Amino acid sequence: MPDPFHLNGISSIQTGLRALDIVGTVMFALSGALLGVRKRFDLFGVLVLGCVTAVGGGAIRDTLTGNTPPLFLRDETYLWLAIAGSLTAFAFGMRLARFERTISLFDTLGLALFAATGALGATKLGLGPLGVTFAGMLSGVGGGIIRDLLAHEVPEVLYRRDQLYATAAAAGALTVYLLQGHLPQLGVQLSGAAVVIVARFVSRRGWVRLPVRRLPEER
Amino acid sequence: MPDPFHLNGISSIQTGLRALDIVGTVMFALSGALLGVRKRFDLFGVLVLGCVTAVGGGAIRDTLTGNTPPLFLRDETYLWLAIAGSLTAFAFGMRLARFERTISLFDTLGLALFAATGALGATKLGLGPLGVTFAGMLSGVGGGIIRDLLAHEVPEVLYRRDQLYATAAAAGALTVYLLQGHLPQLGVQLSGAAVVIVARFVSRRGWVRLPVRRLPEER
Amino acid sequence: MPDPFHLNGISSIQTGLRALDIVGTVMFALSGALLGVRKRFDLFGVLVLGCVTAVGGGAIRDTLTGNTPPLFLRDETYLWLAIAGSLTAFAFGMRLARFERTISLFDTLGLALFAATGALGATKLGLGPLGVTFAGMLSGVGGGIIRDLLAHEVPEVLYRRDQLYATAAAAGALTVYLLQGHLPQLGVQLSGAAVVIVARFVSRRGWVRLPVRRLPEER
Repeated sequence: MPDPFHLNGISSIQTGLRALDIVGTVMFALSGALLGVRKRFDLFGVLVLGCVTAVGGGAIRDTLTGNTPPLFLRDETYLWLAIAGSLTAFAFGMRLARFERTISLFDTLGLALFAATGALGATKLGLGPLGVTFAGMLSGVGGGIIRDLLAHEVPEVLYRRDQLYATAAAAGALTVYLLQGHLPQLGVQLSGAAVVIVARFVSRRGWVRLPVRRLPEER
Repeated sequence: MPDPFHLNGISSIQTGLRALDIVGTVMFALSGALLGVRKRFDLFGVLVLGCVTAVGGGAIRDTLTGNTPPLFLRDETYLWLAIAGSLTAFAFGMRLARFERTISLFDTLGLALFAATGALGATKLGLGPLGVTFAGMLSGVGGGIIRDLLAHEVPEVLYRRDQLYATAAAAGALTVYLLQGHLPQLGVQLSGAAVVIVARFVSRRGWVRLPVRRLPEER
Repeated sequence: MPDPFHLNGISSIQTGLRALDIVGTVMFALSGALLGVRKRFDLFGVLVLGCVTAVGGGAIRDTLTGNTPPLFLRDETYLWLAIAGSLTAFAFGMRLARFERTISLFDTLGLALFAATGALGATKLGLGPLGVTFAGMLSGVGGGIIRDLLAHEVPEVLYRRDQLYATAAAAGALTVYLLQGHLPQLGVQLSGAAVVIVARFVSRRGWVRLPVRRLPEER
C-alpha cells in the first residue's frame, strides 16, 4: 500500500488545505444530489449521484497521480460528508425553489476548491505549467462531468457558451502553478480558488465572452 | 511491475473465489452482448460491448486499488470467457424471444458476484465500512455503466426507480465488510452475492420501494 | 514516483516511436477540435475537446499499465502539440468545407498510431495476445470515445455498422503482438499502424462488412 503525499504533505500538517478539500466535497455533493432530486431519482440514486459527483474530481486527481487507492476510499470523512450533503439536498430539495441558481453556486465553489487542490498536488509531482493546469482543470471539472454523464445530461462543461467554466478552472490551476513557492501553501490554494470564483462571477455578468467559430453556411 | 494480491491471495489459493469471478465475467459478457444485438451492432461491436461490460467492473476495482495492469489484462482467461459469452449471445440472440428478462437475469448475477469480489478486495486494503461499500458497489455497477454509456442508453443504474439496483450492490458489499473474519473467504463472498440477489428479487416483486423527493410544483 | 518505461525504452532511445506518438496526438487533436467547432463550442471548449481527444488514448494506456502520472502530464510536448492542433482547427475550421471527411481522415491516422503504440507498450509488460489486442484497441479508440461522450454524440466506435473501426484497431494491435521480436520496434509499430489504415480503407470501400444479428421480428 502506498504512503501517499496527501497524508503527510497536505492533510495532516496543513489542515487548512484539508478543510478546503472537505468544503469542496460537500459543495459538489449538494450539486450532484440536487440534480438527482430534479431528475426524480430515488433516495439511493440521489445519494449515489451526490457521492460520485463529490469524490469524482478527487478520484481523477489521485488516479492520474498514482495515489491509489484514492484518498476518498482511505479517509472515510469524505464519503460521510458526501452522504450528509446528499441527504440534506434530498430533505430540503423541495423547498429550494430555484434549483438552477443553488446548484450553480455550489458547483462554482466545488470547482474552485478542487481545481486548486488538484493543481497543488500536480505541482508536488514536479509537473510543468501545462500539466499542472490540465490536471487541476480535470480535478475541478471531473466530478461534474461524471455527474452529467450519469444523469444523461449534456455535459455542461463544454456547452456553457455564455460562461467561463473549464476556463475558470484552468485559470485557477495556472495561478497555483505561478504562485507556488512565493506564498504559503494555504495562500497559494486560496488564491487559485479565488481566481476561479472571480472568473465565474465576471463571466456570468456577461463581461467576458469567448469566441465561437462561425461556420461557412452562417456567413 | 506490481505483484498484486489477486495472484497470491485470491486467485491461486482460493480457487473458489476465482471461479465466482469467472462466472460474473461470463454473465456480464452475455448481458452486454445481448444489448449489442438488440441495438443492431455488428459482430465486432457485439464482441466489444460484451467484453467491455464483462471486464469493466474488474478494471475499475483494480485501477482504484492500484493493481495495474488490471487482472483481466494479465490473465487471459477473462477475455477468452468474455469472448465466448459474447459469441454465444450473438449466435443464439435471435432465439431469445424476451431480451429484457434474459439480460436482466444475467445482469443481476454479474452484479452480485462483482460487488462481492470488489468488496472483498477492498477489505484486504484495510478500507473502512464506507470505502468497502463504495468500492464494492462501483465494481458491481461499473461494467453496466460503461455498457450503457457506450450503447448511448440511459444508465439504468440510477434510473431504475422501481427496483433496487446500486442499492442491492451496496448492501452486498456492506455484508462482505461485516462478515469478514467471521466466515471463510468463500462464505463471505457467497453471502455478499446472495444479499445482492435477494435484494434484487425482493425489489422486483414490488415489496420494497425507495422514496422519491416530491418537487414543489407537484404538490 | 515511477520511472516508467516510456522515458527509457520508447521516448529517449527510439525517437522514431516517439515521433509517431506525436503525430497521432496532433491528428486526434484536429479530429476533436473540428467536432467542437461543428458543435459550436467556444474557443476554450474547442481547446479542451481537442486536448482530451488527443491525450485520452494515451491516458488510458498509461493508467491501465500503471505508468502514473501519464506521459502527457510528464512530457509537456504532447499538450503543446494538442493545443497547437486545436487552435489550427479553430482558425481554419471555417474553410474546411467538408468536416466529415477531414475529421474522419485525421481520426484514422490517430487511431492507427495510438493502437500500435498502445499494443507495443502492452507487449513490454509481457501480456498475452488478447491482452495486447485489447489494450492496443482501447488506446486507439479511447480518445474518440471520450470525445464523443463529452460532445454528447453517439460513440461512433460501435455504431459504424458500415465500416471497420474498433476491428481495425484490434487487427493492428494483434499485428504488433505477432511481429514483435521479428522486426525492429519501429518496423513493428509501423506495420501495426499500416494494418489499421488498410483495414479502414478497405472497409470504407464497402469490400468488407461484418454480420449483424437479425432479430426475430425481422424474419
